[in-house]
Amino acid sequence: MNSPKLDVKAYMQSVGREARAASRRMAAADTAAKNRALEAIAAAIERDSAKLLAANAADVAQARAAGLDEAMVDRLTLTAKSVKSMAEGLRQIAALPDPIGAITDLNYRPTGIQVGRMRVPLGVVGIIYEARPNVTADAAGLCLKSGNASILRGGSEALNSNLAVAACVHEGLRAAGLPDSAVQVIETTDRAAVGELITMREFVDVIVPRGGKGLIERISNEARIPVIKHLDGVCHVYVDADADVAMAIRVADNAKTQRYGTCNTMETLLVSRTIADAILPPLCKICADKGVELRGDEASRKIVPAMKAATEEDYYAEYLAPILAVRVVADVDTAIEHITKYGSQHTDAIITNNYQNAMKFLREVDSSSVMVNASTRFADGFEYGLGAEIGISTDKFHARGPVGLEGLTSQKYIVLGNGQVRG
Amino acid sequence: MNSPKLDVKAYMQSVGREARAASRRMAAADTAAKNRALEAIAAAIERDSAKLLAANAADVAQARAAGLDEAMVDRLTLTAKSVKSMAEGLRQIAALPDPIGAITDLNYRPTGIQVGRMRVPLGVVGIIYEARPNVTADAAGLCLKSGNASILRGGSEALNSNLAVAACVHEGLRAAGLPDSAVQVIETTDRAAVGELITMREFVDVIVPRGGKGLIERISNEARIPVIKHLDGVCHVYVDADADVAMAIRVADNAKTQRYGTCNTMETLLVSRTIADAILPPLCKICADKGVELRGDEASRKIVPAMKAATEEDYYAEYLAPILAVRVVADVDTAIEHITKYGSQHTDAIITNNYQNAMKFLREVDSSSVMVNASTRFADGFEYGLGAEIGISTDKFHARGPVGLEGLTSQKYIVLGNGQVRG
Repeated sequence: MNSPKLDVKAYMQSVGREARAASRRMAAADTAAKNRALEAIAAAIERDSAKLLAANAADVAQARAAGLDEAMVDRLTLTAKSVKSMAEGLRQIAALPDPIGAITDLNYRPTGIQVGRMRVPLGVVGIIYEARPNVTADAAGLCLKSGNASILRGGSEALNSNLAVAACVHEGLRAAGLPDSAVQVIETTDRAAVGELITMREFVDVIVPRGGKGLIERISNEARIPVIKHLDGVCHVYVDADADVAMAIRVADNAKTQRYGTCNTMETLLVSRTIADAILPPLCKICADKGVELRGDEASRKIVPAMKAATEEDYYAEYLAPILAVRVVADVDTAIEHITKYGSQHTDAIITNNYQNAMKFLREVDSSSVMVNASTRFADGFEYGLGAEIGISTDKFHARGPVGLEGLTSQKYIVLGNGQVRG
Repeated sequence: MNSPKLDVKAYMQSVGREARAASRRMAAADTAAKNRALEAIAAAIERDSAKLLAANAADVAQARAAGLDEAMVDRLTLTAKSVKSMAEGLRQIAALPDPIGAITDLNYRPTGIQVGRMRVPLGVVGIIYEARPNVTADAAGLCLKSGNASILRGGSEALNSNLAVAACVHEGLRAAGLPDSAVQVIETTDRAAVGELITMREFVDVIVPRGGKGLIERISNEARIPVIKHLDGVCHVYVDADADVAMAIRVADNAKTQRYGTCNTMETLLVSRTIADAILPPLCKICADKGVELRGDEASRKIVPAMKAATEEDYYAEYLAPILAVRVVADVDTAIEHITKYGSQHTDAIITNNYQNAMKFLREVDSSSVMVNASTRFADGFEYGLGAEIGISTDKFHARGPVGLEGLTSQKYIVLGNGQVRG
């Protein structure tokens, strides 16, 4: 498929047309059929584990030969264990309640009609991701369960792996009487395919890009279709004057050091002036022990002189690394101002025992997740009970925060009458 | 403001920046303040009725001199009665429950954190509409109550009227201690202002265009911001084999003839083959009496030979006029196929006593409102109990169907903990 002669536009139009047709069948598919497909895909993946690993080995060898960096090779590489957990993930999706068809808020109106809302699929979901073959199974499963057709465009380095996963997906769909084209993996590595995918408004209802900021920024600038995305995770923990000191230190430690490279990791610690003396020295000791570099403002450095000086840029930075920016602030209002100016509307937490400050922070911090006395690391579909997530949205339109099955659906109005007419 | 020297880009950037700043204050405004503002605006509008009518008379005179057609002049013209109902509409919005801050689905997770969702404003809403001054008050009121800042761009012919309404709005906002810039009326008639408004992604969160299809199509093609919109209302009534004949005729009559020019008016009638003989002759008689022209397929014309022949284009048409396309179909599946092909995903109804067909139609018709045994004319925010609507959406992303206060909001996740960290 990578011959220079491939007409990418025609190919993508045909993929889009088939996806649109399949989306109608998926919207009407019953819960049992969707679950049967998910179970059959999981079984096929387990059965074909050796085949998947062989296809993946070819991808890894090519990637190494092309000089791909080790972190990327690591994400690309499948193991017997990761194949098993792909299958497990699909079974977990099968076990989730089916959101489609749920009717809510069905109430009588004075005219005698009943008006309610029915949950329905979005239609066709386009997913663009880097060379991580496990995303192929995961994304296909979430779209399938939510009654959508999906078009998957994974990183070109993972093409063999993705096609091997796709073969299992198609086998499972067929076993359940659902169309193959409900899940399509783009078979060309030509980058023009992405340009087509994100502009085919007649065939695609939403784009979910997963990967680095550069990729997501480019896609959301060029897309002519709604995008579910987040760009940055500049997450804050604000330790209020009335915080429990031990709790504040425990939460801040966890928010920064449990994992450095995730979008819900704390990047800036804000500390109320009146409690900074109690918080900063022990926290800095923990950070020093774990090799976390601290960069503070003048007030912080008066308390912990070993700290490096933070620049304006530090407060905008998503380090994704063992570095933490620190700032001493006057109160909850100053903390909210800082978060509004420097934050990325992802996840922010306050540590406090003060009711008014907790409520103010909850209400006024305009982020997709706002927390009281909990680690920012909890911002995650599994932790929130969504079962799985297709991504995290920091936008306010449609879905906000971790996006699970519900974010891949919409609600239409239904009206049940008895022959009523409008007067 | 219409001097050729106005730097439209700089002006719009300044409007956007002020709206963004005001949106933060509006998000934090309490219910009492918002309601106080709405009541004060209503009172100012009633008190200034004569001033509003004078400003409007100037607009109308100019519009007539410029040769605007009578239908547009009619929509532009305010009367003492329509000023009164503007004020009344604002009081109704004040009486609606405040959606902002509502917390739902707050549940404990196994880790001990409580996860829920809090309803929050979208931020800044841009509204683009034709020369209808009553929309200025209505849109400002809905955005205000939902905690958003708004930027209003009405048709240039209504500028004096809109500025007179805006003066009342600003007086009311000030009386409640809210910022003037929470509602801004664009003061230039330069069309470039629209181009700026729909591309200022940093300052505007959603665009709501109201008006003709051409305007909406242009805006949604050029916008770089999400748009809440509908283009067409090609609405269907399908009379199933098992319909009650009298009910079917009553509903079809109402759906077509209660008003011709609205987006929820029926444009095509589909009739099951087995009941067409009973439905078409009496319905055609009613239509003939009311001056409605019928255009049918061959099968319909065999039953009512007086009917004109329908072309393929007739089934795509949104007449907004006393014309009705008619087609005889085999069954509910054929009806759904027709609606999928020719419809606009606005509002479609089935008339039936057959349970399975009703359920199939409800589930499989992919429109923003799907009805059983009720007139399509009910598709409306007031009729649905939303209190008022900012518009109707036929898209599936974010809001679908009539959009009231809730459609102008989003939900963020909130997490309440007790010092929990992630393991």
